Amino acid sequence: MTRTRMESCIRAFALSLAALQSLITWEAAVGAPLGQSDISDFLLNNGLEVVVIPDHRVPIVTHMVLYKAGSADEPPGNSGIAHFLEHLMFKGTKRHSAGTFDTQVAEIGGEENAFTWSDYTAYFQTVTPAALETMMEFEADRMRNLVLTDAVIAPERDVILEERRSRVEADPEELLEEETQATLYQNHPYGRPVIGWMHEMEGLNRADAVGFYDRYYAPNNAVLVVAGDVSAATVRKMAEETYGAVPRGSDLPPRIRPQEPEQNTKRTVVLTDSRVTVPSFEESWVAPSYRTAKPGDAEALDLLAEVLGGGMRSRAYQELVVKQGIASSAGAYFQGTSLDPSSFTIYGSSRGEGKIEAVKDAIDAEVRKIIRAGVSDVELTRAKSRLVRSMIFARDNPSTMAIVYGAAVATGGTVKDVQEWQERVRAVTTTQVQAVAEKYLNSDRSVTGYLLPRENTSSGD
Amino acid sequence: MTRTRMESCIRAFALSLAALQSLITWEAAVGAPLGQSDISDFLLNNGLEVVVIPDHRVPIVTHMVLYKAGSADEPPGNSGIAHFLEHLMFKGTKRHSAGTFDTQVAEIGGEENAFTWSDYTAYFQTVTPAALETMMEFEADRMRNLVLTDAVIAPERDVILEERRSRVEADPEELLEEETQATLYQNHPYGRPVIGWMHEMEGLNRADAVGFYDRYYAPNNAVLVVAGDVSAATVRKMAEETYGAVPRGSDLPPRIRPQEPEQNTKRTVVLTDSRVTVPSFEESWVAPSYRTAKPGDAEALDLLAEVLGGGMRSRAYQELVVKQGIASSAGAYFQGTSLDPSSFTIYGSSRGEGKIEAVKDAIDAEVRKIIRAGVSDVELTRAKSRLVRSMIFARDNPSTMAIVYGAAVATGGTVKDVQEWQERVRAVTTTQVQAVAEKYLNSDRSVTGYLLPRENTSSGD
Repeated sequence: MTRTRMESCIRAFALSLAALQSLITWEAAVGAPLGQSDISDFLLNNGLEVVVIPDHRVPIVTHMVLYKAGSADEPPGNSGIAHFLEHLMFKGTKRHSAGTFDTQVAEIGGEENAFTWSDYTAYFQTVTPAALETMMEFEADRMRNLVLTDAVIAPERDVILEERRSRVEADPEELLEEETQATLYQNHPYGRPVIGWMHEMEGLNRADAVGFYDRYYAPNNAVLVVAGDVSAATVRKMAEETYGAVPRGSDLPPRIRPQEPEQNTKRTVVLTDSRVTVPSFEESWVAPSYRTAKPGDAEALDLLAEVLGGGMRSRAYQELVVKQGIASSAGAYFQGTSLDPSSFTIYGSSRGEGKIEAVKDAIDAEVRKIIRAGVSDVELTRAKSRLVRSMIFARDNPSTMAIVYGAAVATGGTVKDVQEWQERVRAVTTTQVQAVAEKYLNSDRSVTGYLLPRENTSSGD
Repeated sequence: MTRTRMESCIRAFALSLAALQSLITWEAAVGAPLGQSDISDFLLNNGLEVVVIPDHRVPIVTHMVLYKAGSADEPPGNSGIAHFLEHLMFKGTKRHSAGTFDTQVAEIGGEENAFTWSDYTAYFQTVTPAALETMMEFEADRMRNLVLTDAVIAPERDVILEERRSRVEADPEELLEEETQATLYQNHPYGRPVIGWMHEMEGLNRADAVGFYDRYYAPNNAVLVVAGDVSAATVRKMAEETYGAVPRGSDLPPRIRPQEPEQNTKRTVVLTDSRVTVPSFEESWVAPSYRTAKPGDAEALDLLAEVLGGGMRSRAYQELVVKQGIASSAGAYFQGTSLDPSSFTIYGSSRGEGKIEAVKDAIDAEVRKIIRAGVSDVELTRAKSRLVRSMIFARDNPSTMAIVYGAAVATGGTVKDVQEWQERVRAVTTTQVQAVAEKYLNSDRSVTGYLLPRENTSSGD
């Protein structure tokens, strides 16, 4: 199962979508004390927040700008405009014709990408430190000076429509994921696909793009993160000379979206398709995010996901895949990095001719076991260690660190929150893990998506 | 099962909610040629549309104003504001203190009520013809002169919160209906409850109410319907003297709401509650409304609902309740009177110890039978006759006629559409009925709500 609420436009030298999605769990990517005190966080006069994460082991630097505007900020009926604008940001500005920025990055052997998420949109390049100021010049330029003409709108709209056709319409798993999300969120815009609904994407026009750009793309609604072989002093000087010249935008109101009502029902969403070969399911609950949770609850949910279904040592994997042999996959994850309450998910797929209901029943039984009897000290300690170890890998990659800190700040967190995360995780008790399982994983309130092969050619149920 | 997307505030002498809901199916309420040519439809200079339906058999008259603004027009995050404003319309104006209008209606032995629907909000009184002009004076007065102070807002908000608690939170059937609607509509605001989500109702304030009132309550966004013992000339003269003095409001943009994407999944919504005694289900599909359907499709859907599940002579009732004896109720209905695509629904409840799945399977089988083999000429003819007969009753009641014409005009239809409806229904062929069943009742795209008793005290699944 995938986490679809991100749209990444794979371009030359780009990271894969899967890699980006794994990066997004910043909770698993930070925390080793080493070097954390070096991180700087300051504001330019025009309101741009700058985070610098020095790492001098390799002579590269990741330069990333995140705008605090994603698909959940789109006007109703205009779904897809955040992602469409992400595409349009690669068109020309008053100063640079379309493609110049791309060419520049390619010529110096850099990598670049951009992606759109429910809560933010990010643009980044990984280059040699010598090229950093050039990146800043280009990025600061397109922050306000993008030229959006009808001549660029229509062909690029064809591109995003084709992207949706090939990535979503042609993939039953993605189609199911969209409708599962739309069912899970009864009121919150997280229920809308990041790429947009096809019929609304078809209607996106120049005015929509300009409206979104003018409203949200400004230094006081952005975060600049620079990670890698550079000092804070250098970044500050360069940022002041480039981004510092961009005028502050209008003040934006607080980011208040329609929130979820109390949910009272258990729901299923079934997609039966002849292209499916292995039956699978994904069961989700609305759960608080790091920003909205009571202290400790989000950390406990991360550890619960790790104990229950984080990789091959987890309860779900060991019980369903290894011991019972009924599943080819089984796991759990928690999406904690979001502005508003998000989701906790368990998933699995059948092995051989086995029924998917048996797989779901078995993992549900593991959930109930934790609710009833909790987790052991030993497995909690191991889960904490696994999270910490996974972050050691993450810290080797400046791009990962940039997205970790950038995503946290763009969803209402602070640099300090990220720095103290490891400490807060270590403080979680077995009682807290059991408590969040009981509180949030109520089997009468979940939404389960089933992806099933079509057994025969009839369209009956 | 009920149709919940309407909120009616029962006051003195009011019609019951159930009665109002049955009235809403105007397709079933008109069509007898008798007297239809007498209906007048004209505009005042300020844009108010006036429909007069003379009926001199009884010396009463129904006076109704509908505003083209309902819950589907609410700003996201402000659910319930249309219905809250409906309550607030009974507070004072610059000219009349709170309660004066109510008292006046009561003193002359009249009836009055108001209700909020997804697409409109309606206010009406049934009085003697001598009191008509007084009703117009009061109604025209509160169209623009309502006084909304914080002193009236807070107590009335407590009233709507209590209304939600007693009508929705205390009723598992209503809770299920809300979440079934929220699941059926993945993008359209018809997925929001008319009364509003509790957490959003709690936040409704004076500014929200004033904003909605100022935007939508104006003669050029309203329809006045007068039905009963009065002539068009008299109504025109009185309307010009009363409503004619209300200044035109700003022009409103077209009523374009976020539309449904193509749906690809089969969904279920389950509410298990110890207060439930008889298991029941309700299966719905998104279906076009009279305003959005291709010519003939909405009429065919109305007839399909009649053949399949319109009362005791329908296939579902005869097969499930009478013949098989497995259901205590079974039926179908089509909600055709709406601005945007709405829904077609089948429903049923168990009898004795029978499984609800068996009831659903049996009515699904009836649907498949129609898709496969169509309906007979005889049953289609009988269904047409039943619709026509039901309208004979409807025409005896001026209130019914007012809501029939008012609802049609407030959802984008015309007086002529209503007048010609019977003729269009008579023209529907068996082939068309089979075609709409096949086109819209795809079992891979439905949403089924199950209301189940809790078997024991465990909270497991």
